[in-house]
Amino acid sequence: MQVAMINDEILPLDKLDSAYLDRGLYFGDGVYEVVRSYDGKIFALDEHLARFANSLAGIEIDDVNIEQIRKKIIDAFETAKIQNARIYFHITRGSAQREHNWDDHIKPNFFLTITELPDFTGLKEKGIAVLIQPDLRWKKCWIKSLNLLANILARHAAAAKGCDEAILVDDAGMITEGSGSSFFAVSGRGLRTAPLTANILPSITRSYVIKAAEKLNIEVVEKSLTPEEAKNADELFLTVTTKDIIPVIKFDDETIGNSQPGAITKNLISEFLKFTK
Amino acid sequence: MQVAMINDEILPLDKLDSAYLDRGLYFGDGVYEVVRSYDGKIFALDEHLARFANSLAGIEIDDVNIEQIRKKIIDAFETAKIQNARIYFHITRGSAQREHNWDDHIKPNFFLTITELPDFTGLKEKGIAVLIQPDLRWKKCWIKSLNLLANILARHAAAAKGCDEAILVDDAGMITEGSGSSFFAVSGRGLRTAPLTANILPSITRSYVIKAAEKLNIEVVEKSLTPEEAKNADELFLTVTTKDIIPVIKFDDETIGNSQPGAITKNLISEFLKFTK
Repeated sequence: MQVAMINDEILPLDKLDSAYLDRGLYFGDGVYEVVRSYDGKIFALDEHLARFANSLAGIEIDDVNIEQIRKKIIDAFETAKIQNARIYFHITRGSAQREHNWDDHIKPNFFLTITELPDFTGLKEKGIAVLIQPDLRWKKCWIKSLNLLANILARHAAAAKGCDEAILVDDAGMITEGSGSSFFAVSGRGLRTAPLTANILPSITRSYVIKAAEKLNIEVVEKSLTPEEAKNADELFLTVTTKDIIPVIKFDDETIGNSQPGAITKNLISEFLKFTK
Repeated sequence: MQVAMINDEILPLDKLDSAYLDRGLYFGDGVYEVVRSYDGKIFALDEHLARFANSLAGIEIDDVNIEQIRKKIIDAFETAKIQNARIYFHITRGSAQREHNWDDHIKPNFFLTITELPDFTGLKEKGIAVLIQPDLRWKKCWIKSLNLLANILARHAAAAKGCDEAILVDDAGMITEGSGSSFFAVSGRGLRTAPLTANILPSITRSYVIKAAEKLNIEVVEKSLTPEEAKNADELFLTVTTKDIIPVIKFDDETIGNSQPGAITKNLISEFLKFTK
């Protein structure tokens, strides 16, 4: 008899819930997005859905109707009635007996959660510390996939040293991005961040920060930085959907600016917020 | 109300089955093994458990008692009563609300399936075709993790061209291993395969093939090959737990030997089988 075992319970294989046969679990064979709402309004859903479609195409999950995904998200959001919500969703290739190759008729699984976001005002006022870590990820980080082991191990290493984020450095010694964020430096009146060609995720918050910078007449240079250059910057910050812009006041034990969020970072935070209204 | 959605069904978040909160699904935050039995006897369980312990340590899942895992595997195997069984098991860090960093008190999830292996005699007599693909994987492939997206995409690309396996080639132009197998070439009386330092999995079947070669007085050189060198080899084969040794008769459209499994490969298959008795 073919069997399965979940923790200590043995059961016949054909009694196994399909959640345990998800290729998302066996292979990380799926892609995800995190969207948030500000005061009851979902921010940048079109951009997130466009990126989601790119990620799906990147792993050859072809038969997803993005408009149906949009409808599911909006239905769930209207049910949840949470003003400042974190909306996580993923699609995996589907459930099947574990086999590297997939059957073309497999049906994708959709999954979503909507949770309440904490208030990040304090974090933005105080700023965070970050730690550098080697970038061990695969070579298609433009796909927002469920293969995140390198990311979470880097994040854990940072947390073990009291840091809130790990900043990843590639083999060439250049900063790519955070384990779950984009990374920016401010020097004088200029912003600097890695180009999208640097095996990074095309961050949507990043694109809005660039728009905010343009409105404020701040020059943006898309060119990778070394950790040394980051340490010598006037200001540093991260961008991430759930928290938009977070000032960095400590970089790998080096104090940035005067250990306070910088003026340009604060201006960008205010300017960014206007997009969310 | 915090909510979840599974396909089309919206439910309160606190009604969600813990299977949907598995970090294995969100991040591929887990490690696995595949073991097989030959005629009712599990092969090389000690070696698989030792590698499993290394993989667990590699992703900092610390509190797993390997002897308890052995007992679970044997209990399930005795329940299944399958002579030639494929035993898959994984441990993930546990179930929790999605958050990159983990709580040190999280409890790991164990999961196992035992299925019947098909008879691979025909495949061994006929041999298979393989296709080269770029190695896009992360930098810690010695960890047998659930982050297998690069592997399955390579396998699918191979399957789309009628090939049974993808052979991965790194940035330096050297063959690392198959998407789910180790790779060997035979030239004259010598075997050649990538060294364990080449960002590959320390394959247990590979180690038994090396032992079998020693018994047959076949020299083994652990040095990476280029695709060109592979094409010019006398014989090629793969090793993988479920099928042990599989002859390769076509490499990226190039016929190997005389399109038949080679003599040394066949000798190794026979010699390997003795270990399984």
